[in-house]
Amino acid sequence: MKYDFTTIPPRRHTDSVKWNIKDNELPMWIADMDFKIAPEIIQAMQDKLQLGAFGYEEPQDDYFNAVAGWYEQEHNFKPKDDWMIFSTGVVPAISSIVRRVSHLGDNVLVQEPVYNIFYNSIENNGRHVLSSDLVFDGEAYSVDWQDLEEKLADPLTALMIFCNPHNPIGKVWTKAEIERIASLCKKYHVVLLSDEIHGDLVRFGDSYIPAFAIDTNLLSNVISLVSPSKTFNVAALHAATVIIPNDNLRSIVNRGLNSEELAEPNLLAIPASIAAYTKGHNWLKELKQVLNNNFDYATNFIKEYLPEVKVVAGRATYLMWLDISEVSDNSAGLSQFIREDTGLVVSAGSVYRGNGNDFLRINLACPKPMVEDAMARLSKAIHDFQNMAK
Amino acid sequence: MKYDFTTIPPRRHTDSVKWNIKDNELPMWIADMDFKIAPEIIQAMQDKLQLGAFGYEEPQDDYFNAVAGWYEQEHNFKPKDDWMIFSTGVVPAISSIVRRVSHLGDNVLVQEPVYNIFYNSIENNGRHVLSSDLVFDGEAYSVDWQDLEEKLADPLTALMIFCNPHNPIGKVWTKAEIERIASLCKKYHVVLLSDEIHGDLVRFGDSYIPAFAIDTNLLSNVISLVSPSKTFNVAALHAATVIIPNDNLRSIVNRGLNSEELAEPNLLAIPASIAAYTKGHNWLKELKQVLNNNFDYATNFIKEYLPEVKVVAGRATYLMWLDISEVSDNSAGLSQFIREDTGLVVSAGSVYRGNGNDFLRINLACPKPMVEDAMARLSKAIHDFQNMAK
Repeated sequence: MKYDFTTIPPRRHTDSVKWNIKDNELPMWIADMDFKIAPEIIQAMQDKLQLGAFGYEEPQDDYFNAVAGWYEQEHNFKPKDDWMIFSTGVVPAISSIVRRVSHLGDNVLVQEPVYNIFYNSIENNGRHVLSSDLVFDGEAYSVDWQDLEEKLADPLTALMIFCNPHNPIGKVWTKAEIERIASLCKKYHVVLLSDEIHGDLVRFGDSYIPAFAIDTNLLSNVISLVSPSKTFNVAALHAATVIIPNDNLRSIVNRGLNSEELAEPNLLAIPASIAAYTKGHNWLKELKQVLNNNFDYATNFIKEYLPEVKVVAGRATYLMWLDISEVSDNSAGLSQFIREDTGLVVSAGSVYRGNGNDFLRINLACPKPMVEDAMARLSKAIHDFQNMAK
Repeated sequence: MKYDFTTIPPRRHTDSVKWNIKDNELPMWIADMDFKIAPEIIQAMQDKLQLGAFGYEEPQDDYFNAVAGWYEQEHNFKPKDDWMIFSTGVVPAISSIVRRVSHLGDNVLVQEPVYNIFYNSIENNGRHVLSSDLVFDGEAYSVDWQDLEEKLADPLTALMIFCNPHNPIGKVWTKAEIERIASLCKKYHVVLLSDEIHGDLVRFGDSYIPAFAIDTNLLSNVISLVSPSKTFNVAALHAATVIIPNDNLRSIVNRGLNSEELAEPNLLAIPASIAAYTKGHNWLKELKQVLNNNFDYATNFIKEYLPEVKVVAGRATYLMWLDISEVSDNSAGLSQFIREDTGLVVSAGSVYRGNGNDFLRINLACPKPMVEDAMARLSKAIHDFQNMAK
């Protein structure tokens, strides 16, 4: 390894949300990695600090070229120059788009279980969550296409928020699946908003397909949201790109982002994003190896020591989805017990809704010893829980 | 001088909005300074980069203590701990508050001529601008109290955006004036939103009075917005504090800021703000001397070489307000002529509305030679304009 994936940055007692925990606790919850970021990105940040004056900024061509170049090199499809808009984040953009392309009281379709913050973006803006739940067969999830079509056909459904790849289940969507969804959205005049923040984190097998890379005839109502945030562990960089092939839809979204002050970069957002997208390829390659090792370790550990817990093996994200239905019928209660018993902090699957109550989500983006510690704590806690229940 | 106020940071051909101009042009428009920021702030930024992991963050007590300490030391009044909310900027907070405390079609009262971005925050959100114009007597501006009261009494008026100190005229409001405005707002159930971003930049005489420092009985509907942005030249830091003494009003605003994703700090916002507020006192003291020297120079230059232009001498901000009514009846046309003739870029007063069309706004926050260059260009341009008109 050329890069450092063994040092845990010391974030206890800082402003970190992940590490705002008790001293004996181990945070494996929020999607934020415990690796030092790529030195090329740090260098670009340091270079920017040398400038010494930090007034109002706007992104120039070099930013958009870097984003487009990344998608061409990593994902074999280059978005056109004029498709892209800078935004301060994927979630801010989702919230803004909910407000711009739907009306109060409309339905926004999601596929539960899914990233819980989608619900905030929908419900805080007075829209309704309508789910076409993903169907779980005990091994993997799939789409109920008839149910999806019926719900997209509902005249109150104005927007679908799609998670590509899908958090928390780690599902990588195929081009055929994305095109089928886009086709249904087009048929029923539903805007398809695709959150692609985990797109770079497909750990093995076929890569993710950006929604802007599907059949051109299906692109008229498609929005992709991308960011270096998850890939390079820079959530607090506040940088994302909104990619919209259709001119009119892009203008509508652009006006929302501007009116809501979500379109101006902070002083690090542009240079750090450019560094990530132009110099981050090798760091990402090594990161994925580290993550695969962690997934292999955790999968084997659970198979051996916690056979009553089932790993649902997604190929994307650094988040492992654990079926705990044989242990408890209350994931919130179980995660609370695990935390109190051992200090291990994981996410209760219930926050993702759908069948999430049967699951825990555990973040494996950290050096191996931290994964080992987490597995030991998980094992102790589950066994203590079972013994207590006897 | 301990600090460097002579080096112009080289921002041509960067992402700087101010310097996104032709090579022969001199930017004296947008409110952004051409000084290197305080080394204590740069140091805090560099220290933060050492951490190496930049996931989700939330401000802790040390941030709010730093803000409160600054206001106690610089402005003799300490806001209470629980009055403060972090936000990504003053303008984002204004837009969010417009949406939260008024309804579509309501009036938002301002005092023209005033900071033009207020109009965006009001009109982009479907509210109406209602102005109680400041009255200009040829020397200074004052309030028409009867007109102000009538407009606040209008049942459609839900919010007043107050500029304290007032940009672009540089007026420093007295405590008596602020209390009179707050009292009228309270009487007519109008929320008083006070933009105090230029508060630290009162160059001489009595200091500014934060709106949260007035008579406690008048605070129930008062919101102050403060930021290190103008004071320390860190607009792209994206950091501000919303100060609201009233619990209910604070909850309402807080919910808006959170729903609209304007409440999370980027990775530099907190440490750089803390450095500014705890270590920036001396830098600010020197800055004000430099600005006063620039104002003296420009005032004398204009008196000697451009007697047909009148300086309206505000005590606050680094923006000079020039009455050009004897030269032209079209400030936009005149500023365009100045730019084409000499490359000097200044703001047309018309964008601030009210009687702004009789004025130009020129930014004097830069090293002296740049002010000298600007004055030489202004003089040439005004004389060329006059000769052309003959």
